[in-house]
Amino acid sequence: MSLKIGIVGYGNLGRGVELAVKQNPDAQLAAVFTRRSPQAVKLAFPGVPVVAADEAPAWKDKLDVLILCGGSATDLPTQTPHFAQWFNVVDSFDTHARIPQHFDAVDSAARRAQKTAIISVGWDPGLFSLNRLYAQAVLPQGKKYTFWGKGISQGHSDAIRRIPGVQDAKQYTIPVPGALDSVRLGENPTLTTRQKHTRECLVVLKPGADAAQVEHQIKTMPNYFDEYDTTVHFVSQQELDANHSGMPHGGFVFASGATGKHGENKQLIEYSLKLDSNPQFTASVLVAYARAAVRLNKEGVFGCKTVLDVAPAYLSPKDGAALRKELL
Amino acid sequence: MSLKIGIVGYGNLGRGVELAVKQNPDAQLAAVFTRRSPQAVKLAFPGVPVVAADEAPAWKDKLDVLILCGGSATDLPTQTPHFAQWFNVVDSFDTHARIPQHFDAVDSAARRAQKTAIISVGWDPGLFSLNRLYAQAVLPQGKKYTFWGKGISQGHSDAIRRIPGVQDAKQYTIPVPGALDSVRLGENPTLTTRQKHTRECLVVLKPGADAAQVEHQIKTMPNYFDEYDTTVHFVSQQELDANHSGMPHGGFVFASGATGKHGENKQLIEYSLKLDSNPQFTASVLVAYARAAVRLNKEGVFGCKTVLDVAPAYLSPKDGAALRKELL
Repeated sequence: MSLKIGIVGYGNLGRGVELAVKQNPDAQLAAVFTRRSPQAVKLAFPGVPVVAADEAPAWKDKLDVLILCGGSATDLPTQTPHFAQWFNVVDSFDTHARIPQHFDAVDSAARRAQKTAIISVGWDPGLFSLNRLYAQAVLPQGKKYTFWGKGISQGHSDAIRRIPGVQDAKQYTIPVPGALDSVRLGENPTLTTRQKHTRECLVVLKPGADAAQVEHQIKTMPNYFDEYDTTVHFVSQQELDANHSGMPHGGFVFASGATGKHGENKQLIEYSLKLDSNPQFTASVLVAYARAAVRLNKEGVFGCKTVLDVAPAYLSPKDGAALRKELL
Repeated sequence: MSLKIGIVGYGNLGRGVELAVKQNPDAQLAAVFTRRSPQAVKLAFPGVPVVAADEAPAWKDKLDVLILCGGSATDLPTQTPHFAQWFNVVDSFDTHARIPQHFDAVDSAARRAQKTAIISVGWDPGLFSLNRLYAQAVLPQGKKYTFWGKGISQGHSDAIRRIPGVQDAKQYTIPVPGALDSVRLGENPTLTTRQKHTRECLVVLKPGADAAQVEHQIKTMPNYFDEYDTTVHFVSQQELDANHSGMPHGGFVFASGATGKHGENKQLIEYSLKLDSNPQFTASVLVAYARAAVRLNKEGVFGCKTVLDVAPAYLSPKDGAALRKELL
């Protein structure tokens, strides 16, 4: 089969999907939908139709699946149920507290239309969620840990940029090495927020801004920074652009348990990601689950799913016999 | 629900299953079947019936699932299809080359009886296979690596013990640190067998045996040792028993890929296990998949499956809403 994929929203993530599709010989990009003027969108590989988002319903028989690349704050809560009226859809909705509500809205839209939706796809939520589930099922009495980084947190970078006097900023989330070591040794530490991660901020000041005042505002910002050991470095725009323009990220999921009649045997599961490009990796996961959504739909499995509900084999273009032979 | 589990075969793995069941509040051990005299089997937690394997069919309405804990060489190829006539079954069949044949035999027996079987469950095959599949689906152009160890290889230890003059032996498989480092750096090395693992042998000689001759026979043994850098240490039985009687194992699955228009962004996935007890960990995985087999059966999904075919959510005693809230 050749999987005909449409993208909705052409930012970093949408562009990542365009590139990820190129790595999958069984998939092709068939259209990009945008709320901007289609003429304003310059694809990495031109030649694919760029279409106004409002015209998407006319494409309902020309695409197998839509990958929704909008933001979780305002785009996806309306877009995913909306497009599920006509398409199988996959999104990367990541506002944890609103996942149950988003799931219900997408589920009812998709069921009505006999479509298949997979939400909250990516690495966290996504591959990390899977690993938390597998680990918890295998070591039910164990302790689970998730660490993030080293990587750029978009939300924290944005929060710094909103401080008066700040021209630009990037924030790195960094796991505390000693905490990682303790978990790896099976010590099952109880870790506070401060003991798990540090935050490193690279800040470009506007001319005349008060550095000490900006640093104080960052370090005392509730929720974002006050519970962490935070370091602030003031740099030039040139340095920020030259050395910190990438979007690296990653992290670790651990499960540390013990088995045996007296719990005498330590068992450690560790999963980690080291990503030069967070959006391109998330996009790669989205494409794999787009394939799964189409296959589930062909089997008559309708409604909303998450990565927890999808059997791994659905992600691969290969059939069961080939997978058993090559991967088991 | 309370999952009523039966064990067939009470060696290291069967005993591991007995212990693993204790960690799962929704499961209980209901019977242990043995080909030995039932009186000869001493459970870790006595009180559960120990029954002659021949009498198992009489238990068909009293159990939800059987976990088969025999060996892959001669037990499971006949036992798994045999018991699938009456029970949902889970096994840890790990003779890679014979998996397709075993799958077919189990599949036809289970379908005829409307039972559900999950074969080749454990960590490799098992959790490592899952990770190879997820990694390959997400980074289809990437390179995949599997390393094993540091851990005891039962097969290699047995091979040494068959050499004349050897009284006892343990063999550790050890990944080469430089190879792991190179993969972690995203260098995508091409590695020979010798470059990936070394083998360390602890050997107890029989009185009067020729150490040099034994060492030569080990190091030149085809398939087992000749393609590896092998170290042989001669030790006393006392030292072997005191310091090397455990069954530790583990390993690593890596996927190293690149994304971006020109492949400029490296993306690394690493999964690793560090296990103090190989059989107890395998047993823990078996219990999670036993739960899945019972649920699939209740949904009318019959025949043979592998870990690749089972959606992660089936492994957990929690329902979809709880899993989405806690793990996504």
